[in-house]
Amino acid sequence: MDVEECVFCRVVAGSLASSRVYEDDQVLAFMDLQPVTRGHVLVIPKVHATGLADLDEQLGMAVFRVAQRVAGALRASGLPCDGVNLFLADGEAAFQEVFHVHLHVFPRTAGDGFRIEADWRVRSRAELDETAATIRSGITAES
Amino acid sequence: MDVEECVFCRVVAGSLASSRVYEDDQVLAFMDLQPVTRGHVLVIPKVHATGLADLDEQLGMAVFRVAQRVAGALRASGLPCDGVNLFLADGEAAFQEVFHVHLHVFPRTAGDGFRIEADWRVRSRAELDETAATIRSGITAES
Ligand SMILES: [Zn+2]
Ligand SMILES: [Zn+2]
Repeated sequence: MDVEECVFCRVVAGSLASSRVYEDDQVLAFMDLQPVTRGHVLVIPKVHATGLADLDEQLGMAVFRVAQRVAGALRASGLPCDGVNLFLADGEAAFQEVFHVHLHVFPRTAGDGFRIEADWRVRSRAELDETAATIRSGITAES
Repeated sequence: MDVEECVFCRVVAGSLASSRVYEDDQVLAFMDLQPVTRGHVLVIPKVHATGLADLDEQLGMAVFRVAQRVAGALRASGLPCDGVNLFLADGEAAFQEVFHVHLHVFPRTAGDGFRIEADWRVRSRAELDETAATIRSGITAES
């Protein structure tokens, strides 16, 4: 993707406005324009990566480190914050909307309106073992 | 917390059954008993930490690295997987249920029943700037 077409690359470059929370050589953290709760921060690598598959592993770790620090900052900030969620959407099917990888960090309080719905069902050990073996084969295939 | 009382410490120790996907010196990945979708993995540090506040930063980075590898493995595994979500709940208000920090990694497909509801509202730049300043004060307060 052309860097000029990526809104988060434009945020990094400063050609698009943002409310910055933290910045270092590799990582930028700034406020989500449409927060789930007040204090909703996005943590991104400065170098463009579409998703987890093309994100350098060391850079991914640097993003997570900043997210952990932002979580601590939210708790220390005085904003309403009884808990923190981290969320990352990798791919359109996973609700990714901007295709520059970003880790959401947002404070939580009781009754804040954030809800998750899913088709949770307890699975048998046999099924879990079979699925685990299938995923291990994916790890092998990668290395 | 007494390690013997923590179910994930018992999984690490092997005194509680689990379907393991990946393991190294620091990190363990195993199947969630009640998956959101087939292939739902939990990635945890082997050493007990309740949440992000008492999780060693280097260990947090190691957890994220494994989560990124598991995401790749899910895509390579042949399981239904058009996208991947990472989710971490830090604190009861954020839906944490087991108080040994864990990063959820689960595959997504269209119509899989996973939904998020929230009170999304676009915020003004002035409000975002003010919130960013408040969070930056939390970062300063930590260091
Ligand atoms: Zn970009
Ligand atoms: Zn534990």
